[in-house]
Amino acid sequence: MTNASDNIVSNMDIPRPVFFVSDRTGITAESLGHALLTQFSSMNFEHHSLPFINSEEKAISAADTINQIAQTSQHQPLVFSTIINDVYRKIIGNTNSHLIDFFDAFINPLEIELCTKSSHAEGLSHGISNERVYMTRMDAVNYALKNDDGISTKEYKDADVILIGVSRSGKTPTCLYLAMQFGLRAANYPLTEFDMTKGNLPKILQPYRNKLFGLMINAERLHAIREIRRPDSEYSSLVQCQKETRLINSLFDVENIRRIDSSHISVEEIATSIIQLMKINRPPIY
Amino acid sequence: MTNASDNIVSNMDIPRPVFFVSDRTGITAESLGHALLTQFSSMNFEHHSLPFINSEEKAISAADTINQIAQTSQHQPLVFSTIINDVYRKIIGNTNSHLIDFFDAFINPLEIELCTKSSHAEGLSHGISNERVYMTRMDAVNYALKNDDGISTKEYKDADVILIGVSRSGKTPTCLYLAMQFGLRAANYPLTEFDMTKGNLPKILQPYRNKLFGLMINAERLHAIREIRRPDSEYSSLVQCQKETRLINSLFDVENIRRIDSSHISVEEIATSIIQLMKINRPPIY
Repeated sequence: MTNASDNIVSNMDIPRPVFFVSDRTGITAESLGHALLTQFSSMNFEHHSLPFINSEEKAISAADTINQIAQTSQHQPLVFSTIINDVYRKIIGNTNSHLIDFFDAFINPLEIELCTKSSHAEGLSHGISNERVYMTRMDAVNYALKNDDGISTKEYKDADVILIGVSRSGKTPTCLYLAMQFGLRAANYPLTEFDMTKGNLPKILQPYRNKLFGLMINAERLHAIREIRRPDSEYSSLVQCQKETRLINSLFDVENIRRIDSSHISVEEIATSIIQLMKINRPPIY
Repeated sequence: MTNASDNIVSNMDIPRPVFFVSDRTGITAESLGHALLTQFSSMNFEHHSLPFINSEEKAISAADTINQIAQTSQHQPLVFSTIINDVYRKIIGNTNSHLIDFFDAFINPLEIELCTKSSHAEGLSHGISNERVYMTRMDAVNYALKNDDGISTKEYKDADVILIGVSRSGKTPTCLYLAMQFGLRAANYPLTEFDMTKGNLPKILQPYRNKLFGLMINAERLHAIREIRRPDSEYSSLVQCQKETRLINSLFDVENIRRIDSSHISVEEIATSIIQLMKINRPPIY
């Protein structure tokens, strides 16, 4: 006799297919879908992305894909959808799947609350719906590249923020993320050991004191990151990392620099924290 | 006598406050909230972001902020929330607002469908929940910077994709986005007029033919973008842009390069299209 609970356990090991279906990039569908699925960490999921479902033909083809996977899998697929068009939504809705329709769930209640019919226009997110906002973001990416790692300090007057920290504390990816996601102009300046030993800000940074933001990192984490880059070097040694982190934390103290510990948080978290702590006025996410 | 419809019109001109509340970065809440609100394009909204609501104290403070805005605004605020903790959610839910709770709406149905209780653990999205995936993304950002604009071609064997196109066709931001969002290793190589006039691929690219992806752009759009960068130059002239785009399109034809027209789509759309068209196996969005 088969034990029912055995079956459940072994069944849970087989990943359940999950589809993220969208009329545009599918990034929003996948982000929220993923956020929900991380709440079921004991389960395995197999991710499939079906972006740009913006015609009846593509909707039928997407539905075929879902049904094919449904036939070969031991689990019924989950489908997270942000499709707006009613015809395409119905086609996806008729598949052999458990549908979680993000638009359906909220658009009707919002129409009632806002006393307005929704336009049912195809996704305006993650596109160039607002040319000005989009160009601001692309300009900001160019700004971050031109003002990375102290290459140039000429445009610091245009910066929204200037990050300072030791080498490998996360300055460059954070600047790029602030630019790409929020359209903010973020520069970064690498403090040398000489700067840090002097114990105060280099002259070049002093006029921009109100734009400075410090990234701290603990010595062990810095050591681990640097080891990947230059193994067994003086640069990556724990002794050197301890020295630099001690010096920079003391400089941040003396100069009263706003700062955050970047050791165990992501660029998204660092960037969002900087905006919050510096009270930077940013445009809404596109 | 006041005309009722006049009142409605003037009331709609006053922006309605919208809050995006989250226990982490709030990026998911804002993305989906914004996607929903773009469906009501006749209305004005005033965006407020309340990230990192991860303690009772912060939840009370966020609720105060919402209530204060509610008191001074002519409209009741909308609140989009991805908070998971029940206590904090209840605090936000008791504000003078119209709450759209993304987790509440889907977690219970998912628990039933998956026959599993959700962990109700604080947001695992947009953090370093998976160290390996996160380091892959950061490595990919470094890779994109090192292999930008033909600076180096030594690591092309490690590339997931090598973008080719004329200057200002969107190669660099697309590579950075592919890296930051998806952890893909994306290089880019600028084809010179000499390369394009010869009419076939430079030798250095020939071994990587299966990794190449072309970005097309129409001459008018290219002209407009280059004019911002170097106004009234030969580089930005319409004649030069027409010449380069004609040459590169012909090279793409001759060499049978997979390609996309980047003229009127965003980096998010270009990146997602590349992944789809090249069938690149990417990890799920973090």
